[in-house]
Amino acid sequence: MSKRNLYLKTIPVDEAVEKYTKAVRELIGVKREEIPVTESLGRVTARAVYARFCSPLFNAAAMDGVAVVSDNTLGATEKTPKILQPDRDYRVVDTGDPISEPYDAVIMAEDLMEDREGNISIIAPAAPWQHIRSVGEDIVAGEMILPGNHRIRPMDISVMLAAGILEVEVITRPQVAIFPTGTEILEPEEVDSEKAAREGGIVESNSRMFENMVTEEGGIPHRFPHIPDDYQQIKTKISEAVDRYDMVIINAGSSAGTEDYTVHVLRELGEVLVHGVAIKPGKPVILAVVRGKPVIGLPGYPVSAYIGFENFVSPVLAMLTGRGEVRRDCCEAVITRRIVSSLKHKEYLRVKVGKVGDKIVASPLARGAGAAMSLVRADGFCVIEQESEGVEAGEKVLVELNKNLEEVEHTVVSIGSHDVIMDVISDMMIGRYGNMYLSSSHVGSMAGLMALKRGEAHIAPTHLLDEATGEYNVAAIRKLFREPMVLIKGVSRMQGIMVRKGNPLGIGGIADLTGVRFVNRQRGAGTRVLLDYLLKKEDIPVEEIKGYSREATTHMAVAAAVSGGSADAGMGVYSAAKAMNLDFIEVGPEEYDFAVPVKYLELPHVQAFIETLKSEEFHRKLDEMGGYRYPHAGEIVEISSR
Amino acid sequence: MSKRNLYLKTIPVDEAVEKYTKAVRELIGVKREEIPVTESLGRVTARAVYARFCSPLFNAAAMDGVAVVSDNTLGATEKTPKILQPDRDYRVVDTGDPISEPYDAVIMAEDLMEDREGNISIIAPAAPWQHIRSVGEDIVAGEMILPGNHRIRPMDISVMLAAGILEVEVITRPQVAIFPTGTEILEPEEVDSEKAAREGGIVESNSRMFENMVTEEGGIPHRFPHIPDDYQQIKTKISEAVDRYDMVIINAGSSAGTEDYTVHVLRELGEVLVHGVAIKPGKPVILAVVRGKPVIGLPGYPVSAYIGFENFVSPVLAMLTGRGEVRRDCCEAVITRRIVSSLKHKEYLRVKVGKVGDKIVASPLARGAGAAMSLVRADGFCVIEQESEGVEAGEKVLVELNKNLEEVEHTVVSIGSHDVIMDVISDMMIGRYGNMYLSSSHVGSMAGLMALKRGEAHIAPTHLLDEATGEYNVAAIRKLFREPMVLIKGVSRMQGIMVRKGNPLGIGGIADLTGVRFVNRQRGAGTRVLLDYLLKKEDIPVEEIKGYSREATTHMAVAAAVSGGSADAGMGVYSAAKAMNLDFIEVGPEEYDFAVPVKYLELPHVQAFIETLKSEEFHRKLDEMGGYRYPHAGEIVEISSR
Repeated sequence: MSKRNLYLKTIPVDEAVEKYTKAVRELIGVKREEIPVTESLGRVTARAVYARFCSPLFNAAAMDGVAVVSDNTLGATEKTPKILQPDRDYRVVDTGDPISEPYDAVIMAEDLMEDREGNISIIAPAAPWQHIRSVGEDIVAGEMILPGNHRIRPMDISVMLAAGILEVEVITRPQVAIFPTGTEILEPEEVDSEKAAREGGIVESNSRMFENMVTEEGGIPHRFPHIPDDYQQIKTKISEAVDRYDMVIINAGSSAGTEDYTVHVLRELGEVLVHGVAIKPGKPVILAVVRGKPVIGLPGYPVSAYIGFENFVSPVLAMLTGRGEVRRDCCEAVITRRIVSSLKHKEYLRVKVGKVGDKIVASPLARGAGAAMSLVRADGFCVIEQESEGVEAGEKVLVELNKNLEEVEHTVVSIGSHDVIMDVISDMMIGRYGNMYLSSSHVGSMAGLMALKRGEAHIAPTHLLDEATGEYNVAAIRKLFREPMVLIKGVSRMQGIMVRKGNPLGIGGIADLTGVRFVNRQRGAGTRVLLDYLLKKEDIPVEEIKGYSREATTHMAVAAAVSGGSADAGMGVYSAAKAMNLDFIEVGPEEYDFAVPVKYLELPHVQAFIETLKSEEFHRKLDEMGGYRYPHAGEIVEISSR
Repeated sequence: MSKRNLYLKTIPVDEAVEKYTKAVRELIGVKREEIPVTESLGRVTARAVYARFCSPLFNAAAMDGVAVVSDNTLGATEKTPKILQPDRDYRVVDTGDPISEPYDAVIMAEDLMEDREGNISIIAPAAPWQHIRSVGEDIVAGEMILPGNHRIRPMDISVMLAAGILEVEVITRPQVAIFPTGTEILEPEEVDSEKAAREGGIVESNSRMFENMVTEEGGIPHRFPHIPDDYQQIKTKISEAVDRYDMVIINAGSSAGTEDYTVHVLRELGEVLVHGVAIKPGKPVILAVVRGKPVIGLPGYPVSAYIGFENFVSPVLAMLTGRGEVRRDCCEAVITRRIVSSLKHKEYLRVKVGKVGDKIVASPLARGAGAAMSLVRADGFCVIEQESEGVEAGEKVLVELNKNLEEVEHTVVSIGSHDVIMDVISDMMIGRYGNMYLSSSHVGSMAGLMALKRGEAHIAPTHLLDEATGEYNVAAIRKLFREPMVLIKGVSRMQGIMVRKGNPLGIGGIADLTGVRFVNRQRGAGTRVLLDYLLKKEDIPVEEIKGYSREATTHMAVAAAVSGGSADAGMGVYSAAKAMNLDFIEVGPEEYDFAVPVKYLELPHVQAFIETLKSEEFHRKLDEMGGYRYPHAGEIVEISSR
């Protein structure tokens, strides 16, 4: 462990970006190339583009009608119409036909009367140049039609061609080499899950994310096979790459671990300007220059890798491509949970976003650097600046959006208990309606109802047992809310104990949970309330359950812990046990319903949610998954006030 | 002319779109295909995607450090540290290494002390599962990772691969045939400007715009050589195309002129659902279905073509690609000019947009259907609904933006007199600063000052001669404004009379303008003020100038009219004459400066504008263009109040 540089010193994000882009700007001149205009979509002009020809190229009829000599039409009125003879006094023209001397005006077809001989009569004089598009009216030869550093759009292509431009000088797309590193790394095609689970292989997918991000941002990616953790091999590959490509990205090995060689290699080959940035996730970033080329080392955790790319690779690509930086749309939102953040770093929080009442709410997703799904699920990022120790629930934050505000406004915001049917409903709503969305955050039944009460959600999925009545959900809602509420009935689902296939420890029920390694759900989860109720009934103190304090936030996460062997048992729903191929010991059915304030019931997206619950398509899917009943799905139960 | 269907009846836009998309939706099933995940960027999922593997695949170290058995660490404190021996009590792990029995916790490297024998001492107990990522913590096998109808992003590709998904079912990209029509049409490569100007050929560029719009919207375009205006040929081509492609676009010939065969062909081959929509520009649209395929005829004017595509082709593509409709960002803006619009149609106004003070202002661009440059120059569209007769200057309107709001906020809004240097400065500002923009509308000097006074611009380029003092600009500003103003000095430019090369009519000065065909500038233009002043001086009544009432809005447009032969003379600046290869009879230099309220002077984009005026790069460009002097460019002249 002696080689470890345990204390990676960090510098603030903005300082790192400024220091690096300044160094890189001085090194790099953008390259230029001439390409056919017809192939220039999305490319960036290297200099201003000037028209070669006028458009129109000649004086042209702007209407279907007849070309006339304006002087000959003077004096025409309804009472004293002028009669014009074909060929001598007028010529029939269609829109776009050239108008040449002696004609200097066009009369629209609608304003003409024609007799059998082809003579026409007009009832008003034609002003000189009426309904004629003059040469150069649209584009004048020599005029600047596009500035430099302009991203070419379809209409730009059309206008360039109309102005006689066939070739355009654009900024050459930068070539970006991408090197995954790591001895334990497997290509996705090579992965045999059993073997990898046994031996610890890691699926390498960051480089595929990077290559597509490079493509989206206007570069040409070159992804290489992974380099093992070997100083000499890493050195050789990087050294070759900087001679052939405009930029190099090295993934993982950017930290200060025993096998993190990248920074040492880069120090030998060139200059490391930054190692370690005060950003979370994403701290162990390396920003280097080798023989005049930018070389960036990014951390291996997927979220760190993404945030590192966005913060450090994107600004360099923006320079190399001439596109400038892409700014996401921002909106102000109310954060639904308290977030504590350290003064040691700027934090990028992934959030779900929706509009509830007249405010936009942001619910934080999993914060871990390894939570790649949080990137997929996020509607946006909320940045907590380094100077801030965090935000309180209900505080206003700025969110950089991944989606447009119209989608946000058509989204049912659900906060509460988790069930896999939420994903199914979300998928079906998009399929059925196109523009109706469901965004669900999973915090457990009770926390969901509290969020609903604070006006941060439209609906709260809940399965809370009232011990007094044996009834689900109604009592809790009645107790918590003063405003008019209803319950949208959801599904009845089987709860049980999940154990490994074959039930090797012979668990028969709640009483057998003492002495085995248990994995629990988080506080406030309906499943945990049910467990506590059952433990109390059997007179088992929670201290006897080993792992009672180990919390997972979804049924699937509990099933995964059991399946992976880190726990022997956990409680959850049948569908999760089935998905992970576990045995399932039933403890009883429960009602999974949705609490909704009456005022949200008529929102079109809430209606779409209800219609989806009622649909045959949904019921077929429930049958297929198993463990559900749905006799009342989508029915509205009024909750009488106290 | 008897074949003409002169009165094309129109239906409202929304009604047309609804009628057509409803008909098309019933005909079309989206096609699906399996493709490699690594090639799926930007494609749309045909159904939900479920994880095959968990991620992580095994319990893994979340930190660099040592793996320990948590039970063995109980009781460790700063005063009573626990000593752990290598191999027996702990194992060194790097982030991502598998953790297997008996180990169940990781202690971070930072929290360890190591002695020479490799024994480590710890000063706090490790909680079970601390710093371990459990199997499935990020992705659980069987979990839905992407919904259907989802456009695949880089992070989605990464997550699919991590979850063991190598192939994904996506919606097949629709194949769209594009047919230009028209006998007089020329391909851009074929255009010889002299010949086309003589014979009336039209450069066909709409189809290039369409093919790139189809690409951007997720389809695969197939552009065909143009079909002459021939009933049988059009019929044969469309008939073949509907059998081979998913959609057909026919350009031009969609109206009711003598040679507009498209609608007749489509009536014979299939069903025409709509012919003529109440939209401006873009009325003569044909929406048809032929043998189950959508076939759309679009008008030939470039702006009509674009607006027709956006309104009628895009919704069909949104269905066929599964992408849904793209909504542009909108903002509320104050319109700078009165716009009268007819109740007969919905009008799409192209506008320049900028932020002046605390309001966003929208200045309308050329309204003609032929003004392709208005599409290129537009920052957005302002829709005037069919029920509205127009908007008053200063009224609030909704603008669909082509650019993001941040760009809008970094834009110097210039309204006033036209000079080609405005394009040059705009180009240079982007090149020098990256994110500083200049947006200029040309309404003439006086109208520009009025717009400045109304708070609709930051600067007003002006060249107004004060007849009393012989001084330019200062007097007009002093007279008009109460608030503190300055003049940013611009350039001194030569005004003169532009005539055809060789000056065939022998024009020597203002006195010779009687009797020739003149083209004037619009009211309020400084050049027109100068002309009026010179005419008055020479005692020539304006009635003696033929074409005095024919108005062009830029110097270049005047030069183009002279060059094209529709006028014999016009007044303007040397650079315009030079660009169009005209002879130029000098009448005198004038000062082209910029009026600016003091309160805008410190804005960073206004400062960037001033710095550009002062730059050597700009001065070199002026020398190259000729006709300019710039002894005081960028200097600030204070205007003393009355």
